[in-house]
Amino acid sequence: MPLVAYLGPRGTFTEQASRCLTDDFDAELVPFDAVSQALRAVRTGEVLAAAVPVENSVEGSVPATLDALSAGDPLVAVREAMLPIRFDVLVRPGTRDVRSVASHPHALGQVRGWLAEHLPGAEVRVSGSTAAAAAEVLAGEHDAAVTAPTAIEEYPSLVRLAEGIADLPDAVTRFLLLRRPGIPPEPTGADRTSIAAVIGDEVGALTELLAELSLRGINLSRIESRPTKDRLGEYRFFLDFDGHIADARIGDALSALHRRCSEVRFLGSYPKADRSPATVRPAASEQVFRHSAQWVDDLRAGAIG
Amino acid sequence: MPLVAYLGPRGTFTEQASRCLTDDFDAELVPFDAVSQALRAVRTGEVLAAAVPVENSVEGSVPATLDALSAGDPLVAVREAMLPIRFDVLVRPGTRDVRSVASHPHALGQVRGWLAEHLPGAEVRVSGSTAAAAAEVLAGEHDAAVTAPTAIEEYPSLVRLAEGIADLPDAVTRFLLLRRPGIPPEPTGADRTSIAAVIGDEVGALTELLAELSLRGINLSRIESRPTKDRLGEYRFFLDFDGHIADARIGDALSALHRRCSEVRFLGSYPKADRSPATVRPAASEQVFRHSAQWVDDLRAGAIG
Repeated sequence: MPLVAYLGPRGTFTEQASRCLTDDFDAELVPFDAVSQALRAVRTGEVLAAAVPVENSVEGSVPATLDALSAGDPLVAVREAMLPIRFDVLVRPGTRDVRSVASHPHALGQVRGWLAEHLPGAEVRVSGSTAAAAAEVLAGEHDAAVTAPTAIEEYPSLVRLAEGIADLPDAVTRFLLLRRPGIPPEPTGADRTSIAAVIGDEVGALTELLAELSLRGINLSRIESRPTKDRLGEYRFFLDFDGHIADARIGDALSALHRRCSEVRFLGSYPKADRSPATVRPAASEQVFRHSAQWVDDLRAGAIG
Repeated sequence: MPLVAYLGPRGTFTEQASRCLTDDFDAELVPFDAVSQALRAVRTGEVLAAAVPVENSVEGSVPATLDALSAGDPLVAVREAMLPIRFDVLVRPGTRDVRSVASHPHALGQVRGWLAEHLPGAEVRVSGSTAAAAAEVLAGEHDAAVTAPTAIEEYPSLVRLAEGIADLPDAVTRFLLLRRPGIPPEPTGADRTSIAAVIGDEVGALTELLAELSLRGINLSRIESRPTKDRLGEYRFFLDFDGHIADARIGDALSALHRRCSEVRFLGSYPKADRSPATVRPAASEQVFRHSAQWVDDLRAGAIG
């Protein structure tokens, strides 16, 4: 059975995401202590793939993932999952008075309002992960833990004091399943392509990069810059856009970025989690691309009209 | 011997240009009364090619040529010539007092300063062409004619009162040799490509069209709009830019314009008259284009890095 790495420990959101990302094949899930370690295990072949978080609609992107993706041997995303960020509050059976509540700082940040309203007297404590907080409640260190919905499966002797809580009910975390490069998944008509591109510190460089996409009718869904560690003033841009590398307009745009950028890394073409089909302008359709290339071939061969 | 049409009569600038444009093959030059007639003779196969003026650095472009190029069967330019605009003043031998001077209105417009200074008392009269003015001087209708330098060969019984005159000494007229479509001339590294493109009446349409060129490092040397006769608010743009359709960056840009424009007509790739080599940015070189296309092919096949 193929092994799939995830950011542990068991009972966290990333385990839940890794199950979701591997629901179409039999996989044994292996927890790792850090995203960089999980990705290293993919690169060495120790595991087939890794499920990692890339961005969170409350906390923003996950720098550890971006950095681990842009350094080292190339890896590509083959699947995407969006997990709603909803938490449970677990306690020992019979707990009446909650005087302390623990969790990972990110989780605490996303239920601050709920805690203030429902457990106003409780002391808020920091744990290493949501699952670790549950283990600590079980050991009697705290009265309650804010956890992922899956935690109850790991700690069945705890009970839910509350479930599905979140200050922002629509918040989601986005996860990717990463593998060593290979033939990308088949296009589905509702795909996303991710790249990391380095451009120099020149006037207009980013505008021109974005124009390469917009002129080909490509819809950008995310852009984020991080300074490269190599040179001051040089930035690496993480871009997500609608479409699949097999699409003519996407391949054409990637070629253009490869010419333009001092470095460009393909991070995969994969089905979008929400399955929303790409809107392709008529002038950017496969047929129009094929027709335009044929027109130039004909002109070069002296066959016009 | 192949026939080459030109805008007559004999002894004008266009005859001079047509000789220049056909100096690499034996051609019999045939004068036509109008550019449209000369181009029609190419389209029907009556003649092999036509030498026509397209623009003049004093008078601007030649609408008759642009219109005749954009309607009817496609024609393509295969050679370009730039003729300095210099005039002679011809008189009958023994003429002392010049009381009248005649020429084509365009010619008169370009020597107005010279006439005011050197023949201030002469009456200025309009003829149908510079050559016609010479014929009329020979017939005694006027005292002097402002003519092309070649006119003296047609009217050897006249003599030069002045030669090489022009108010603007650097003015030139640009001519093209047009043929029915065929394999374009070999690239020389100093080529020009001409097109006519129709874009709709939409915000940003022209900016985006120009961006398709600039993003590929293509240097525009001329742009001119003319309303199409079909629809109000719709324009046809005549564009000249450095490079040859055989160049990767030019073929790529033409494909993009074909996708974008409601109509685009290739008007030829041909050596520039001034032989100034195109400046190609490193990111737009043949090798970089080949390499970027190969990169995308490799990614699609799952072979990265």
